[in-house]
Amino acid sequence: MKLKRTHTCGQLRKEDVGSTIQLNGWVNTCRDHGDLTFVDLRDRYGITQIIFNPDHNQEVHTSAKELRSEFVIAIRGTVGPRLQGKENPDLATGEIEVLVDELAILSKADVLPMEVADHAEISTEVRLKNRHLDLRRPKMQQNLMFRHKIVQTTREYFNRHNFLDIETPMLTKSTPEGARDFLVPSRLSPGEFFALPQSPQLFKQVLMCSGYDRYYQIVKCFRDEDLRADRQPEFTQVDVEMAFVDQDDIIECMEGLIIEIMALAGIEVKPPFPRFSFQDCMDKYGKDAPDLRFGLEIKDVSDLAAQTDFKVFSGAIESGGQVRAINAKGASENIARRQLDRYSEYVKEFGAKGLAWMRVEDGKVNSPIAKFLEEDLLNRMLERVNGEAGDVIFLVADQRKVVDQTLGNLRLTLAKDLDLIPENEWNLSWVVDFPMVEWDEDEQRYVALHHPFTAPKPEYADSLEENPKAAIAIAHDLILNGNEIGGGSIRIHDQGMQKQIFRLLGITEEEAELKFGFLLAALRHGAPPHGGIALGLDRIVMLLRGLESIRDSIAFPKTQKGTCLFTLAPSPVSDRQLREVSIQVVGSAAKKDS
Amino acid sequence: MKLKRTHTCGQLRKEDVGSTIQLNGWVNTCRDHGDLTFVDLRDRYGITQIIFNPDHNQEVHTSAKELRSEFVIAIRGTVGPRLQGKENPDLATGEIEVLVDELAILSKADVLPMEVADHAEISTEVRLKNRHLDLRRPKMQQNLMFRHKIVQTTREYFNRHNFLDIETPMLTKSTPEGARDFLVPSRLSPGEFFALPQSPQLFKQVLMCSGYDRYYQIVKCFRDEDLRADRQPEFTQVDVEMAFVDQDDIIECMEGLIIEIMALAGIEVKPPFPRFSFQDCMDKYGKDAPDLRFGLEIKDVSDLAAQTDFKVFSGAIESGGQVRAINAKGASENIARRQLDRYSEYVKEFGAKGLAWMRVEDGKVNSPIAKFLEEDLLNRMLERVNGEAGDVIFLVADQRKVVDQTLGNLRLTLAKDLDLIPENEWNLSWVVDFPMVEWDEDEQRYVALHHPFTAPKPEYADSLEENPKAAIAIAHDLILNGNEIGGGSIRIHDQGMQKQIFRLLGITEEEAELKFGFLLAALRHGAPPHGGIALGLDRIVMLLRGLESIRDSIAFPKTQKGTCLFTLAPSPVSDRQLREVSIQVVGSAAKKDS
Repeated sequence: MKLKRTHTCGQLRKEDVGSTIQLNGWVNTCRDHGDLTFVDLRDRYGITQIIFNPDHNQEVHTSAKELRSEFVIAIRGTVGPRLQGKENPDLATGEIEVLVDELAILSKADVLPMEVADHAEISTEVRLKNRHLDLRRPKMQQNLMFRHKIVQTTREYFNRHNFLDIETPMLTKSTPEGARDFLVPSRLSPGEFFALPQSPQLFKQVLMCSGYDRYYQIVKCFRDEDLRADRQPEFTQVDVEMAFVDQDDIIECMEGLIIEIMALAGIEVKPPFPRFSFQDCMDKYGKDAPDLRFGLEIKDVSDLAAQTDFKVFSGAIESGGQVRAINAKGASENIARRQLDRYSEYVKEFGAKGLAWMRVEDGKVNSPIAKFLEEDLLNRMLERVNGEAGDVIFLVADQRKVVDQTLGNLRLTLAKDLDLIPENEWNLSWVVDFPMVEWDEDEQRYVALHHPFTAPKPEYADSLEENPKAAIAIAHDLILNGNEIGGGSIRIHDQGMQKQIFRLLGITEEEAELKFGFLLAALRHGAPPHGGIALGLDRIVMLLRGLESIRDSIAFPKTQKGTCLFTLAPSPVSDRQLREVSIQVVGSAAKKDS
Repeated sequence: MKLKRTHTCGQLRKEDVGSTIQLNGWVNTCRDHGDLTFVDLRDRYGITQIIFNPDHNQEVHTSAKELRSEFVIAIRGTVGPRLQGKENPDLATGEIEVLVDELAILSKADVLPMEVADHAEISTEVRLKNRHLDLRRPKMQQNLMFRHKIVQTTREYFNRHNFLDIETPMLTKSTPEGARDFLVPSRLSPGEFFALPQSPQLFKQVLMCSGYDRYYQIVKCFRDEDLRADRQPEFTQVDVEMAFVDQDDIIECMEGLIIEIMALAGIEVKPPFPRFSFQDCMDKYGKDAPDLRFGLEIKDVSDLAAQTDFKVFSGAIESGGQVRAINAKGASENIARRQLDRYSEYVKEFGAKGLAWMRVEDGKVNSPIAKFLEEDLLNRMLERVNGEAGDVIFLVADQRKVVDQTLGNLRLTLAKDLDLIPENEWNLSWVVDFPMVEWDEDEQRYVALHHPFTAPKPEYADSLEENPKAAIAIAHDLILNGNEIGGGSIRIHDQGMQKQIFRLLGITEEEAELKFGFLLAALRHGAPPHGGIALGLDRIVMLLRGLESIRDSIAFPKTQKGTCLFTLAPSPVSDRQLREVSIQVVGSAAKKDS
């Protein structure tokens, strides 16, 4: 390689003045100042200003005329101090510049389809199509370097704590229980399919049963779901499992890790993180991953609503529903009448039939529903929600699920609109005591709230089958500013209990043996108590770097339609490739003439 | 958890005598000695002897009667010294034992389908079917713990050297150029497919073009090939790429890593590892991954063979072939006549029509072909191969490829049979100077010997199209004891050269744009010189641990038929799953009634 670098572009300092050095990098900017040509030479490590001076070397100065943005060049030159007043304090190399003696153009750049600069406003589509250029932007480089740091810190943490990094298979068995699997047709077993893992759940449990004691893996997982803004079909999980532990051990271990990860972003957090029960979160915040950086707690006024003649309220209660309220404290002057109408519209998204509001004014209540409510009840409601002059109170009357969703989301929207979310606050908390199961109306059966391998608290073990809804799981979700960044549980290590749960979930014995036979075998032959957790790495990077999209935490992400605009995957493949794995395309996607 | 451990089973020492402790683990063995019950309690960290004494605690002693191998238990007890003469120097805990006060059976074990012990002779099939038990065997645990160490050492090495660990996609584009892709049907783009990556080759090159400078990843790769004993459909690669480097930089960097990896196995190796040219290896050893722990070099006698009237020799030369020989020095008395016949049979596997042999005796040559060879030529042949009394000389006359394959493999077989391979010798070397391309008879076109992104040596750049066969690539394979454990190259960073290579390989411009458009874009917009390598992790673990099969270096491997006997993957999936991704099974694998 011609003129191989002796230094990176972030390395030279005042002490190097007088040295002859070689640099390699990209032309970040190129400016002609009179006779001199100034180039900012860029690499991952920084930027160094290099100067082409015709008085020093006419030939090299002439060659430099050819330089354009993003050319890759190599130079030899002499480090000199910058002229007084010309230092750049924003650059680590800002006190020096390099006078060029020799130049080699290693690679030219055609006209660029997008600018390589943080300040440039570029559409997501253009960025993703030109990911090779997008990835050159300092912000993206910082994102991926920060991700690298998190990953290495995580591994060092687990290594230090005696965990083993063990790889689990990517080509595994389809056991759809929850999300949809990505399938991989087998060539050697025609008509059969592998599935890409949704998580290494069963394998890590087997590893515990095989005595590996403490396992971790930073691993790709796959879910073929319709994608939301913060989801990717392939995502990366920090996957953890421990034997001979209880929930406190797992929580304590993970708090230690999170503290080190947060420190990488310059954020200090202190253990223990507070723990809240699922029920408490649903009651107070309408969500099982509540944002606790602000108040706006939900209050239950069902008992009062039951006593009124106002049918919207009393009817909801009679049909098994609830009436709950949020008090937007002192927000009256910040919420215009039109905004109230917009909220009423907004809540329909969550299935609410309506949104009642009350403006508390000096000595009276301004509300469309005030006239329907008996004064005494109205006053007791105000008292319940601590309603005072200047407050706006929102009420929803509906089935519990609708009330939770409506007020849970309205709470977040209000907080944003009213600017109640403190910047630079990092709220970490655990949500525990989840129900074991919930009733699935579509499938007309119970489904596991976490997954079918989650252990119940011992006190519910005996009454599981008679009262499944009441049973509480030993599960734990980790929440950062209202985002679930991890979830786990103590697992079932008793084969009898595992079979009981399968029964409860409507999984027949044959089905259980077919899908989960290897786990049952592991439980049958001496299984330790064990449990674990998985953290969502992409999301953690996104949150700590303050990114708008999870895509910016990933080098080569997919769009919301699950495609890669850079490589153009997925794509059609040859008939021969399909024939070899004994499949063909059907439906409207099939080629008409084949 | 009941009686949660205070120590692991490998932790207690003489200094702990007198302490009350708790242990958790598996019952490794269980012995009744008169009144006392001795249990060896096992976990990943070691074994501790625990004792149930009815004089100490009658109730616990009675409960212990229930214990069987592989039960998981928890105990509380007091550490005591072993009786004099009863110490076990093979155990780190061999000076102590634990007198049990309290016992909890955490999990019982049914009758086991296989024994959990290293000494047990168990078929591969039974081991793979019961992987949860197989993984409990100390040898397997040591394999995976050793793998963990290699992986962590590798990461630490690269982190220390300023590399970034960057994840590349698993769901990517099918660009079959070489091996067969595993396909993943897309649901959101019906009729289109992702492919699992055969290697992150193109992505790591793009990362170099995007300025990430030094990249590594320990990453799963996939090839849907018919499997040999040391291949797996999913395998793990230590993937590396560096910008602004030449071949020496890559080799030097990797030697540093290999030294640290070998040290984990207690093996000291010194850089620089010797480098051999591809041509030299083929000439002397018939293989491009030669085992250099022993001699048995191949000698060319074609020039002499051309002069004889013996048609088998002269005919081979006339039709463009060769005659080459191996001298098994002093092996005559160790190779029986019947063995010579067996070798003659063996070489047919490699396409050889026959194997000539000569026993050199005092003053004469004993050989079926001696009578056909003129004495002078025979003597000159002997001289060429340094043939002396007691030697056995093997000769093959055929086309070069057949001669290489035959003698290359015969050389290995002879070395094994004659016990010429020194134990505990670790021979590391580089093979370099590979041809750029070779002619593919089936496809009637040139194919890349490494891959189409490999750069030619500059001196061949201009004559590539007129004389492709002569062109030498800047490629490097790393060989350990005759096994290729890594391979890489300097890549093409010039779009014109890349297009030229595509043309040479018969890839049209449209095809190139369709398959590799994103790489070409990256090369077009400012690409640094770059290169790298990938190491085969599974194979390195196998070799350093002296394992018979690569399967023993992997927690959950596949069989040679590409199936997992433990989870029973692949498996049939539901019609709904297939319909969702717009495919159906065809051919003889299709269900008759669907």
